[in-house]
Parts: sequence; C-alpha cells; structure tokens
Amino acid sequence: MLLHLQTWQEVERYLETSRGIIIPIGSTEQHGPTGLIGTDAICAEVIAKGVGEATGALVAPTLNIGMALHHLAFPGSISLRPTTLIAVIQDFITSLASSGFQQFFFINGHGGNIATLKAAFPQIYAHLADLKFSNADQVRCQVANWFMCREVYELAKQLYGEEEGSHATPSEVAVTQYVYPEAIKEAFLEKEVASGHPIYSAADFRRHYPDGRMGSNPALATPEHGKQLYEVAVKTLSSSYLKFIGE
Amino acid sequence: MLLHLQTWQEVERYLETSRGIIIPIGSTEQHGPTGLIGTDAICAEVIAKGVGEATGALVAPTLNIGMALHHLAFPGSISLRPTTLIAVIQDFITSLASSGFQQFFFINGHGGNIATLKAAFPQIYAHLADLKFSNADQVRCQVANWFMCREVYELAKQLYGEEEGSHATPSEVAVTQYVYPEAIKEAFLEKEVASGHPIYSAADFRRHYPDGRMGSNPALATPEHGKQLYEVAVKTLSSSYLKFIGE
Amino acid sequence: MLLHLQTWQEVERYLETSRGIIIPIGSTEQHGPTGLIGTDAICAEVIAKGVGEATGALVAPTLNIGMALHHLAFPGSISLRPTTLIAVIQDFITSLASSGFQQFFFINGHGGNIATLKAAFPQIYAHLADLKFSNADQVRCQVANWFMCREVYELAKQLYGEEEGSHATPSEVAVTQYVYPEAIKEAFLEKEVASGHPIYSAADFRRHYPDGRMGSNPALATPEHGKQLYEVAVKTLSSSYLKFIGE
Amino acid sequence: MLLHLQTWQEVERYLETSRGIIIPIGSTEQHGPTGLIGTDAICAEVIAKGVGEATGALVAPTLNIGMALHHLAFPGSISLRPTTLIAVIQDFITSLASSGFQQFFFINGHGGNIATLKAAFPQIYAHLADLKFSNADQVRCQVANWFMCREVYELAKQLYGEEEGSHATPSEVAVTQYVYPEAIKEAFLEKEVASGHPIYSAADFRRHYPDGRMGSNPALATPEHGKQLYEVAVKTLSSSYLKFIGE
Amino acid sequence: MLLHLQTWQEVERYLETSRGIIIPIGSTEQHGPTGLIGTDAICAEVIAKGVGEATGALVAPTLNIGMALHHLAFPGSISLRPTTLIAVIQDFITSLASSGFQQFFFINGHGGNIATLKAAFPQIYAHLADLKFSNADQVRCQVANWFMCREVYELAKQLYGEEEGSHATPSEVAVTQYVYPEAIKEAFLEKEVASGHPIYSAADFRRHYPDGRMGSNPALATPEHGKQLYEVAVKTLSSSYLKFIGE
Amino acid sequence: MLLHLQTWQEVERYLETSRGIIIPIGSTEQHGPTGLIGTDAICAEVIAKGVGEATGALVAPTLNIGMALHHLAFPGSISLRPTTLIAVIQDFITSLASSGFQQFFFINGHGGNIATLKAAFPQIYAHLADLKFSNADQVRCQVANWFMCREVYELAKQLYGEEEGSHATPSEVAVTQYVYPEAIKEAFLEKEVASGHPIYSAADFRRHYPDGRMGSNPALATPEHGKQLYEVAVKTLSSSYLKFIGE
Ligand code: NI
Ligand code: NI
Ligand code: NI
Ligand code: NI
Ligand code: NI
Ligand code: NI
Repeated sequence: MLLHLQTWQEVERYLETSRGIIIPIGSTEQHGPTGLIGTDAICAEVIAKGVGEATGALVAPTLNIGMALHHLAFPGSISLRPTTLIAVIQDFITSLASSGFQQFFFINGHGGNIATLKAAFPQIYAHLADLKFSNADQVRCQVANWFMCREVYELAKQLYGEEEGSHATPSEVAVTQYVYPEAIKEAFLEKEVASGHPIYSAADFRRHYPDGRMGSNPALATPEHGKQLYEVAVKTLSSSYLKFIGE
Repeated sequence: MLLHLQTWQEVERYLETSRGIIIPIGSTEQHGPTGLIGTDAICAEVIAKGVGEATGALVAPTLNIGMALHHLAFPGSISLRPTTLIAVIQDFITSLASSGFQQFFFINGHGGNIATLKAAFPQIYAHLADLKFSNADQVRCQVANWFMCREVYELAKQLYGEEEGSHATPSEVAVTQYVYPEAIKEAFLEKEVASGHPIYSAADFRRHYPDGRMGSNPALATPEHGKQLYEVAVKTLSSSYLKFIGE
Repeated sequence: MLLHLQTWQEVERYLETSRGIIIPIGSTEQHGPTGLIGTDAICAEVIAKGVGEATGALVAPTLNIGMALHHLAFPGSISLRPTTLIAVIQDFITSLASSGFQQFFFINGHGGNIATLKAAFPQIYAHLADLKFSNADQVRCQVANWFMCREVYELAKQLYGEEEGSHATPSEVAVTQYVYPEAIKEAFLEKEVASGHPIYSAADFRRHYPDGRMGSNPALATPEHGKQLYEVAVKTLSSSYLKFIGE
Repeated sequence: MLLHLQTWQEVERYLETSRGIIIPIGSTEQHGPTGLIGTDAICAEVIAKGVGEATGALVAPTLNIGMALHHLAFPGSISLRPTTLIAVIQDFITSLASSGFQQFFFINGHGGNIATLKAAFPQIYAHLADLKFSNADQVRCQVANWFMCREVYELAKQLYGEEEGSHATPSEVAVTQYVYPEAIKEAFLEKEVASGHPIYSAADFRRHYPDGRMGSNPALATPEHGKQLYEVAVKTLSSSYLKFIGE
Repeated sequence: MLLHLQTWQEVERYLETSRGIIIPIGSTEQHGPTGLIGTDAICAEVIAKGVGEATGALVAPTLNIGMALHHLAFPGSISLRPTTLIAVIQDFITSLASSGFQQFFFINGHGGNIATLKAAFPQIYAHLADLKFSNADQVRCQVANWFMCREVYELAKQLYGEEEGSHATPSEVAVTQYVYPEAIKEAFLEKEVASGHPIYSAADFRRHYPDGRMGSNPALATPEHGKQLYEVAVKTLSSSYLKFIGE
Repeated sequence: MLLHLQTWQEVERYLETSRGIIIPIGSTEQHGPTGLIGTDAICAEVIAKGVGEATGALVAPTLNIGMALHHLAFPGSISLRPTTLIAVIQDFITSLASSGFQQFFFINGHGGNIATLKAAFPQIYAHLADLKFSNADQVRCQVANWFMCREVYELAKQLYGEEEGSHATPSEVAVTQYVYPEAIKEAFLEKEVASGHPIYSAADFRRHYPDGRMGSNPALATPEHGKQLYEVAVKTLSSSYLKFIGE
C-alpha cells in the first residue's frame, strides 16, 4: 500500500489495525561512470514497495535526497546537510505521529544516511515528549539498510566477491538495471579502482576516488542479479518489519 | 531527461549546453474522500517529466513533501515546517549551483508551497553570494504553478465551472486518474461542500472543511480530462521554461 | 489607539471588548534617487494609525525592517533574512497571543515581505498548537498590502498611469511627502527607467535597475496625492479590518 | 540625520565622511500602571535623534521590540527571544557593513537588552570575518544605555532619590511625558512597591511585582524633568558617540 | 559532592533535601605567554569544588569551553559561538530541571561568558514554561564570577595593584599555579603591556594585544597567592550560594 | 600534553611538528545503581591522557556532556540534543582548524555519541570549505570508541563473559574504579537484569531498564581490571592515533 495512492479515509481505516509505516530513504548522488545518480533512492523505493506488498504495510513517499555532502564534487549530486535532514525527519515523523502512527521503519539505500538518521531518532523522541503527544512513549524508529542485510550481503559476495566494493557497487547497480532496464549505461571503467580511503571532505573524496567508484566493478551487474537481490532484500526486510512492529 | 536516471558524466555533458534544471515539488496531504494523498506530487512529477521531454531539460527528483501544516488534522498528511522547507530548498540549490546549474525552475503542484518557495529564493541568493560562488549572480529561481497557468485554469473552468473549487479539485484529481487509472477512488461525497473560509490552523481547517474538500466536486474528474489538462500544462510550462532559461 | 502609548492596564481593558490588533510592517531600503529609505515603513505606519483611529483598533509598534535582501547593493538598505523575519513574527505573535490577542492584521508597505509573512503564518499556528495555548485554534493572521488594495491601485493608475511602476512608485513617494513635507527630495532622474526584469539577487537587481527605480516616475508625486492615497487606503483597510475581526 | 528620511544617494555621500551610525533600541513592555508600554523605545528614539542632531550622525530606525520575556505576564508586552534578537542584530549590522558602515553605536533604553546585545557582538564580528568582508576587522559595536550614564543617573537620584527604583522609573516616565504630553496617564499606585527581587521567569516576575513597578514611584515624573533628563542624556551620549567613532 | 562521582540513586536522595546545583563554567583560550590555556576552566572548577565541599552542594561537570571568539587569533583557543553556548546551557538546565533541580548557580571563570549566560537565562525560563514543566516557575539561575567578588577583587588589588590588569591576570594565574604547581610556566614578558582598548573582533584583539595579555603582569603570581585567592573565593561564593538557594 | 596546561606559544611550537589533536568525549548519565554518572567522561579522559603521553599528541579538554537523551528519566543525567552537539563539535573544530590543526581524533566513551559525531563530521568539512579555510581539504576527523577496540572487547569478554552487558558494564566501571578508588560504590543489584531491548525514548528506556543497567553485572568490576583495560585501551588507541595522523 503506497501512502500517496491512498485517501485520508483509507489511512484512517489502516490505523485501526496497524500503527506501522515504512519510509524509503535514498540519495541523489554520483554512482561512478555507469551508475545512476538516483541509484540509492531507486533501490530503497522498489524494495520498500515490495515489503509493503508482502506485509500489507503502508509505504510513505520516498525521501530521495539524503546526506551526500562527500559526493558534491561530482556534477548532479544533491545533498542535505545533516542538520537539515534531521529537521526533515523530525517534521515527517511528527506529522505522522499526530495521526497515530507509532512504528517508523526506514528502508535505507545509502550508507551516508545512517549516522544522521540515528542521530535524529533520539531528538525526535524527545521532541514528541516535549509536545506531550499521548503516544510519545510508544513511538519507535528503526533504520534497515537493505544492502547490509546478511542475506543480501552474502549474495553480493557470492556474485561479485571483492569486486562488490563499497560504492557504486554491482549489486546496487544491478537492482537499478532490474527496475529500469531502459537506463542501463555503458561507459569506460578504469581497471584499477581506488579503495580503502576513509571518507572526509568532498574535495578529498574526489581526489582519492576520481571516477566516483569505491573499489567496485559495476560492469558485473545484470538485471537478473538485480531481480535476485531485490527478492532477497524484500524477503529479509519483510521479516524485519514484522518483527519490528510485533515487538 | 530525469536526473536520477543519468550518470554524473552525462550531467557533466549536459552542463556544456544548458545551465537549467526543472524541480518538481508537490505535497503529501489529504485531498478529500476520493483524492489521493500524493495528488500534488504526482501532478508536479508527471508534468515536469513531460516538460523535460518537450524541452530537453534535466528534471530533478520530486520534492514530494511540502508545506501542508494546515492539512495535518487529516490522517496520512505529512508536512515540513516552512523553515525546514527553506533549508531543504537552500541545500538543494546550493548543491546544484556548485556543479554549475544556474536556472532553477520549480514546477509546483501545491498552493501551500508558494509562499515558502518565494521566501526561500532571496535567502538562497544571499547565501550563494556569502559563499562567494563564482556564478552567484547568475543564479535565478522561478516557481511555476501548473494549476495556475492561464490555459490550464481556463480548461478547468470550462470542464467544471464553479465545481472546480480550490482544494481536491476535479482537475488535479483528473490528472492523477490519468497517471494512475488503477487508483481511481469511489467514496461518498456530501453534496454540500464548504468554501470561502481562509486557511488558518489545522484544527480550524478541519472544523470548516470536514471532509477536506474546499468547494470542489472531484466526482466530475475523468482520466480523459486528466490527459487534456496534462497536455495543456506541459505545453504551457514548456514555453515558460524556455522563456525562463533564455532570459 | 497606539499600543506604545497605552499602559498594560489599558490593554487589559481593551481585551475585554476586542481580540484584534493591527501590526504595521515596512522596510528600510532604497527607493530610488528621490524616495526615502524609510518609505515602506512610513506608509504602513501612518495608514495603520489611521485605520486604528477609524476602527478603534489597537495598533502595535511598526516593524520597520523587513525582507529587502534584493536592495542590499544600495547603501543604507537593511534587511532581515526570511528565516529571521519568520522568527520575529513568531515571537511577536506568540507574545501577544499569550495576552489573549487572536486576530493579527498586518498592514504591509513592502512587496518583499509578503511571501515571508505568508510562510510565517502556518508555522506560527503550529507553534501555538504545540504550546497548547488555549486559544491556539482561534488565532488568525492576515496580511493587507495597502498599495495593492483595489481602490488604491485604481487611484494610482488614474494619477500616474504606466508611470506608477512597481518600486519607488509615485504613489508611495506621495504618501511620504504628505507625512514628511520637510523631507521632499530633488534629484536627477533618468528619463529612461528600467522595468520588467524579475527580482533575483542583489547584484543582479542593481545591474538591471541602476538607480533603484522599477519602471516608476516618482517626480509625479505630490503631497496632495499622498493625502488622497492615504485617505483611500485608510478607508479601504478599515473595512477590511472590521470584516477580518468579524469573521 | 534620520536614515529613514534619506535617499540612498544621500547615504552614499554620508559614507564619504563618516562610517558611524546610531541605532536606537528599546522594548515594548509593561511599565507599571502609569508608564507607557513603549517607554523604552520612545526614550531611546528621542535621545538617539537628539544625538544625531548634535553630532551629525546618521540614526537608523528604532528597534522597538527587545528582549522582555520577563514582562510577558502583563498584557501588551512583546518580546523577542534572545536568539531571535541576536539574529536581528546580525542581519541589521551585516546589511549596513556591506554598505561600508563600521561603527555601530546602540542607544539602548532597556536593561533587558544589554546581555543579548553584548552576546550578539562577538558572533557578528566572527560572522563578518567568515564572510570575508574587506572591512570585517574595522567593525566595532558599542551599547550605550542612556539611563545608566553617570550624569543621567545623578540627575535621577537628585530628582527622585530612592523612589527612582529600577523599572517604570520616574525618570523614564518623565522623558515619555516630555515627548508625548498628550499621553500622560493617571492610575492608582500602591504606596508600597516591591523591590530587590532578582529577575527570573515571567510568572515569578508578576508574582513578585504585581503592578509591574520595581521599587519606583513614577508619580513623581513631570514633563519638565523629562526635558532635563533628555538634555543631559543627549549631551553625554553625544560625547560618547564622538569618542567612539574617533577611537 | 561532584555529580560525576555520584550514582543516580545518590542524586535522587540528594534531591530530597536540596534542589540546588553548582555549575562551573570556564573557557579554553590563550592567557598570555605564561598563562595556561585552561586557566578559566581550572579556576572555576577548583573553586566550585571547594564551594561544594563547604556547602554540601552538588557540583556538575565543568563546562570547559566558553565564549572566547575574540581570542581565536591565538593558537589553541577554542570557542563556542554565543548561540551555541545558549543551546548548551538550555539543554543542560532542561535535563536537570526534568530531574527536579531548580536553583542553578554558575561559578564562572571568564568575563566573556557573562553576557551569553545572562542572555540564555530568560530564554530557558520561557522554554521550561513552554514545556509545561511543573516546576518551571521555580527555576532560578545565577552567575557568580569568582574574580569579580568584592573580597577577591580587593585581595587581588592588594597583591598586584594596577598590574592585575584584566586578562591573563596574576590572580587567575596564581590560582592555576596553586592547582597545578607542575605547570608553572616561564616565558619572556614585554615590560610594556597594552591596556584600555575595548574588545572587538579576534583580529583587532591580537593587533592591540599582541602577546595576549590585557594590562597584566602575571609574573607576580605565586602558588601561595593562588591559595589565598582560592580560599577567599570559596568562602565568599559559599555564602552567595547559600543565600541564593535560601531566597 | 594536555592543551589546558599549555600556553598559546607552546601550542604554536607544537603545530610546527604536528597537526593532530585528541579530543576526549564522554557523557554525564546514569550508569546503574553502582556506576558513576561521569563514567563515560572519566574513561575517555583518562585514556586520552594516556594516549597523549604515549604518542606526544596534544589532548584537548574533555567534552563531558554528550548525547544521552535516552537516560534522562534517571536523576542527574544531562544531555545535549544531537543538533546542539553538532553545533558544539563544529565550533570546536572550526576554532582549532583556524589555528592550523587538521587531524581530529575523538576518543569516545559513550555509544550514544557515535551517530551524532559521525553526522557532524561531513557538516564540518562542508562548513570549512564554505569558509574557504586554506586547509579545509586537509581536515580529517575520526571517532575511536575505546570500549569497541577489538583488544579491549576481548579482554572484557574474557573477564566478564556475558555479564559484560552493554551499559553500566563492569569494564567501564572497572576503569572508573582504577581512576577513583575512593568513589567505589556499593548498592543492591537485582540478580535479573534486563537486556536486548532496543533504545527508544527516555520513558521507554526506564520502563525496560528499571535500574539503568543493560544486561551487565558491574559487581564483577575491580580496580585491577580497570588498570588492565586502561592499559590495553591506551596501547591500542595509540597505534590507531599514529596510523590516523600518518595517513
Ligand atoms: Ni549507493
Ligand atoms: Ni492539491
Ligand atoms: Ni516601497
Ligand atoms: Ni523601561
Ligand atoms: Ni581568564
Ligand atoms: Ni557508559
């Protein structure tokens, strides 16, 4: 169930049986010479939709701009500052909590969002308590990173081994190929690809990772892999979601 | 050209011939008993995509959460506070301006966003000047409200007359029916519908507009109307965009 | 009744019969070679005072610094950033709402303030609801731009035709001449005056409008016109105020 | 020279010979049963105007809302929060420093503003340095409290002795009587007046100072005293201003 | 009693008999060629600990970073901006007020903190009232500057006369020598030392005070003086604290 | 080398050979019936000091208040909100980067700080780039959690097995016993201790963890264990620091 395709009266009925909601969050940032700028949002959105279908959960609109300051030296990347993203998450959850939602399950497609999301959650719990929301103490947030699920990670390693890398990975590229086969890109990929350098400033990132990839070989990706990865992610995260709302 | 389906190298090439970008912005809010919660984002997104196709312009990901504080008494509505939305717009444009983008054309689907967008623009111009961006003085922002284009407005009046109303209108509902025919809703609609009361707080809004509609009769909407309205909007806004970047 | 000339006990008595207050808001910014930097505040203040006298309404002190970032390339202009102005308006209204005021009628002298005021209002309604003010749902704000009242606009057109322009207009200059006849200025005015260019950054504004005027010929202004315009504005806005508090 | 009665070209000429400006800052708050709510702004404004005449200095528009949170339990009081006031002062000075102003002399009418002004100044110096203003290192701010000038204080003590008190004082009331003789108020004043309790919250303030006065007997005020106090203040602060800009 | 050496259950018991707490606040900033960067925090901490022992009061952890923007042109200095420090103080007091603490007695070692602390207090009272804390109206804050206590000041004048100066003073250096005799520094001190220039920007400060001292001769300091000053400060501030919580 | 025991001239000399600095960060929060409220700050501070001695690195003053919102239902706990902590970290690093420091190594004693620190770092890199600091691209931050070092973790498991738990652990208590043997506490500890519940709001935390411990048995702690843990942590983190600054 996609929230944006419901009416408010349908949401009101949904709340009679569930207080949970899934929120896909991605990023809009460079993904190397062949990866789509929307990769992280596309993956989070499609997997969240799949989990929604599998579990009957409501799925909120995708937060498609995330925390990607370190990618800003590459054209087309867009980032919120962490404090802006915290404000967005707070407004988002406060709005829904005022309707009666209580369990917020973020399906996240971007490593750079994790710290900011986890920083936002305690601030939001405190904010709802400050507002004296009747359900303030029942509100719970969780972030689930599809690419870090054990089952997904193992499949990626099996498919790509060390060439999975850590950014512009073949596994995330594969999922986007499965979703948008018409947008599969060809481009020259240096054989040698940088890896292992920690992430600091945008200028430092580009200096160390000149084409945007971090240790990955996205040329290995196929739409079929994408389908497999998608299915594993949906299955695993559906269990996680049901466990989360049943706690 | 959808930004999220490009690589950063494709964006780099795009910037050699154009400095313009289209940004769809909607809202996630109640639209009466039969209107989709995502109506404003859906309309802005589809029309922006159409304008992108017609003009060759790049289209950024949709900002699907807007300023809808007055709708928060209806379940499923989500709003950013105006100051949060200003921060989002500032981060968004600053990111793209650092890549070289200079003309930001917002295609907006929600009346409640207009004031905040217009408040954000001067703050952003000043911010870019503070940052000493080399192109700070070239940056220009414009908001184009698809539903307020003269041609669209006239078509809506011709199709629906007074029953167009001002929220949950048959014209916006029609566009969503055209995009998502599988999500056409049926629900009881009171014959009498409130109208004319200004917008104040969320509680006041719900008190005066108990089912969420403002003077509208969305039962008149059809997918065929939606197609017509979409086409008129795309045509008109394509001209506006070309005029804007050519100034 | 001017708030700053009352005691708190007089305000307490006023609140027994009315919950309304008028807030003049202007700007401190260049108004071309012959217009006063204080034009917008002077006009808003004198008209608000007139409306207060005509209706018995309390008139708050003038907010004489507004949102004028686009004028900052001209010496002597002062601006709040939009987010600062939102904070000011919020503190202002929150203070008065805690005393029991409920209807806030802004008489505005500057086009550049409109978007920020309209962005501020929903944030303030939400803030008062967050604070659990007993009268939160009764609070209503409205902005009335004296220069955009139909009657004023028509008189200006009749007096000046196309030479009214849109900034440093003869009509606003005339009102200041009526209020401060001792401060009528003489200066060289280019015959040709720029017009029609949208407002972007401060540097862009000065580039397109080198002497600060936007399509206007303030040399046409006279104190007598000012008196006429003042009287029409007071009459029209007095009706608007009474309608607003009577809603 | 009042800034609001100048044109931008007159300001441009002023800057050829002086970089200094006077900024009156007051407050809008209860001043006991007979004191005007605008007392602090009225005093600061009239004295600043006098200093401007005596020294040829430019005088900015009055900041008539200050930091008066502790007075909010009395109807008609308005306050900015300290962080809002800091933002206002920062925007104000940044605007004028961009024109070339360098010495900012605040003539202050309200004790409650002092800490916030002094907190704002270092933040502003750092902000201007961050912005790389060419004159950042030359910018200097000073706050001059008219009621704390030695000469004023001595005259007040001579006129009123212990009955001067510390809020709603006869000396400030006298200055307002001199400026607005038509607004001299009569009201019952308890013989016993509280004093000596430090200032904490608004509720605590009203509990300890039920009629708003702090140890004062404003019934002693006369317009003639007001004239004397005004003249002493203008003379003293004119010297202070000239010393400040000559440093 | 040092808070950081208690358990929460011990704090719970403490609250049965007292609602007061002492908060040492210092700064981390240059103190001339021989003064320690931590001087202000060291002095505040040791004196606060002494007052805690003398009065049985609980002593919070030291806020060792203060408002020292004007010292940032000297290596090793660290400063919070005033608005950051206000946020820190607000969070600090809100946390403890939620436990039941009501009287907050700041023992301050740095002149640069005073204005910001005094600006923070009213904002915090208003914040606690906004949060509807049951004890909001009982919360009281006070700042006690150890170096400005009359008894301390007189001893300093007696020991050092005019050579006390106003920054990097022999009296504060003496207290640090008493606490850290192993960290007594030797360095060349110019005989001539600047004084009398007001504090503006960091660059201006270093220009006028090239070695960081303001009119002081810290070479006069001895650990024995430090012991004397410490004892006088503890005695005086213990009385102040008891008076404060007994009000 | 402790920064607070240096003069600015000593720091200037230090910067000739190193651009690195260690910043201890802890928290002030309940640690169960026998753990000190200052546990996290005490551990971070003593270990940072040890690493400073072992490596010759400068050690900044301890940030002893962290992000502990989830502990606020226990008396004596103090927390910054995440956005406040981000502002503190930004001001802290900006100050030192302006002196020439480039490598910031946080030794952290509290799990609750990690997300906020990691959220702060990219915002700070962007801020320094905005300020056009000449060394902006060289600035690097890293957080090292002493309790999560492999060697420390293994020693803790060897000493306490499953009874280590995850808050108020015997290992952190042991380190505080080693540092403050005079502050070893005795109190009743329920045999059964809750564990496994994720962290949400403060009220939820106390409901699930009524005495504050999370699965731990701090009664196993001894000062001798503390010494061992301290030594392992210092050794490991010294290597990490040297590796970090040598990158
Ligand atoms: Ni990715
Ligand atoms: Ni709509
Ligand atoms: Ni105007
Ligand atoms: Ni006063
Ligand atoms: Ni000091
Ligand atoms: Ni701990």
